[in-house]
Amino acid sequence: LNLYEDFEIEHIVKLVREKEVRVLQLQFPEGLKRYGPQVAKRIKDDVNISVLLSGNPCYGACDLDRETAADLLVHFGHAEIPELAARGVYFAEVRSDVDVMPIVDDALALISGRRIGIVTNVQHVHTLNAVRRRLESEGLTCSIGVGDQRVKYKGQVLGCNFSCARAVDVDEYIYIGNGTFHALGVALATGKKVIAADPFLRKISVPDVESILKQRYGLIAKAMAASTFCVLIGTKAGQQRFNLATELAEEAAARGYNAFTVTINDVTPWTLYNFAADAYVNTACPRIAIDDASLFKAPLLTPTEFEMVLGKRDLNAYALDEFSSC
Amino acid sequence: LNLYEDFEIEHIVKLVREKEVRVLQLQFPEGLKRYGPQVAKRIKDDVNISVLLSGNPCYGACDLDRETAADLLVHFGHAEIPELAARGVYFAEVRSDVDVMPIVDDALALISGRRIGIVTNVQHVHTLNAVRRRLESEGLTCSIGVGDQRVKYKGQVLGCNFSCARAVDVDEYIYIGNGTFHALGVALATGKKVIAADPFLRKISVPDVESILKQRYGLIAKAMAASTFCVLIGTKAGQQRFNLATELAEEAAARGYNAFTVTINDVTPWTLYNFAADAYVNTACPRIAIDDASLFKAPLLTPTEFEMVLGKRDLNAYALDEFSSC
Repeated sequence: LNLYEDFEIEHIVKLVREKEVRVLQLQFPEGLKRYGPQVAKRIKDDVNISVLLSGNPCYGACDLDRETAADLLVHFGHAEIPELAARGVYFAEVRSDVDVMPIVDDALALISGRRIGIVTNVQHVHTLNAVRRRLESEGLTCSIGVGDQRVKYKGQVLGCNFSCARAVDVDEYIYIGNGTFHALGVALATGKKVIAADPFLRKISVPDVESILKQRYGLIAKAMAASTFCVLIGTKAGQQRFNLATELAEEAAARGYNAFTVTINDVTPWTLYNFAADAYVNTACPRIAIDDASLFKAPLLTPTEFEMVLGKRDLNAYALDEFSSC
Repeated sequence: LNLYEDFEIEHIVKLVREKEVRVLQLQFPEGLKRYGPQVAKRIKDDVNISVLLSGNPCYGACDLDRETAADLLVHFGHAEIPELAARGVYFAEVRSDVDVMPIVDDALALISGRRIGIVTNVQHVHTLNAVRRRLESEGLTCSIGVGDQRVKYKGQVLGCNFSCARAVDVDEYIYIGNGTFHALGVALATGKKVIAADPFLRKISVPDVESILKQRYGLIAKAMAASTFCVLIGTKAGQQRFNLATELAEEAAARGYNAFTVTINDVTPWTLYNFAADAYVNTACPRIAIDDASLFKAPLLTPTEFEMVLGKRDLNAYALDEFSSC
């Protein structure tokens, strides 16, 4: 990463001058937080204003720090979520300039279908047309889907939104980006094979959906023996589903369960512990239940999983919980 | 605890009806959170409205959960902080009816001075006159101090405010209440002997100030070798010291240190970790640095301790950091 270019310091300084910003708040996701002090210093070297870093955990553009009365919030590393229409925020996306072609070439060996959907996160959206050309030169048919109002770019997925993947009719997907977090989501959302191509580690993998589903059904079964349910309502800007949570709690109560609703900013094992429910339902970020499952002592379910417990959804119709404006 | 009486359910239901509350938020400190679901249910049995429990950690009346647009917030277990003048909040203090006299009798054996200051937390403020009479019947001279605008009751201390103790000229103090958290604060704030009288465990103790001060000076010494300081600004309602934090960061920078400011809601080791400073200065709750010292890898100092590092305060003039309206 080039601190000056990739974090758009010149543009931020321009915004500060134009908008006569006196207090500037900078927010970085966990993986970029360590650059915060240097970015703040570079900005202060140019404009002598108050620059505050957000120290709260941050895992997405859904999670905007509005706790201080800063004139401008610069949120790094995520694309804007169009449906949130956040005001007073500039999203510095921190695009990666890593060459994705070597890992796309490696991925060819694992492709078994003919019709391929190409997906990525915001760091690599500018590479998708080149990836498409490369795959098409091998005789494959490629699709880059247009998602809903939760995502800004064609082919872009979020941990909670795979609308661009579901928008295309393909045999399998290739995901360009680090880790397997997004690729696992595509697989759970579409039920299709996903090749995760990590250009940083130059590593190919295929997410193990079966073991995740096995774990989910184990937790659903455990929750079926529960008598007290705690339904969580997230308070982060883009994670609030007050009505869904209220409805789920009311339906549970109507079926004779004890059910209560808890508002919460950061869903962690130690914040839930004191409520001592038999099982929890998280209407905030859907990925906490799935990706942090092993950290929670009591079952933490998604809303769609809880619908199975309530008998509202067929046990064979597993559906990933998504934040979707469709 | 009597759920119905001690949590003032009748009065809360009356408030809900009077104010035509549609969404009610309940907030409990950690030690009382487990009663939340039952209190919520009792209220809902009487009035059919939305009742939300706060799932965020809560450690004082400084820490009001205003994340949801509830019509009324009921905050349990703490007295209002007058200087905050919080609107739309009802403070249900959850007074204790434990008999404090047996532990006061036990404490007599440890009293060595003639002039005794009596202090407590909100749970026992209604017992102080009786405690005074008991001690005076033994020939002691007693004082119950009036604190500043941070505290509501005569003789009441907070973890961050010992103004009622400093207001009286005495030889030593007796603290009525559980644990040693408040008693340690009185000792650090006044430099005098404090007898902590816990009526629940019927246990007497004298906080070990020397070992705490030894630890504090060790951390101050370690911070003197630091080159990068992270100054924390709390975002909880009653913990915001923006100007103090900005001044400390600017003074550090003027002395050639790297210094940056971070806004944060909950100060924990894992939220600070990513900033990788050599030392941290916490302008939020003063007790985190002292009581959670062993959890943090890098020194976490109070503002007064940081003044020692900056050479602004004599190393022999240790002062507890307090939130005070004096």
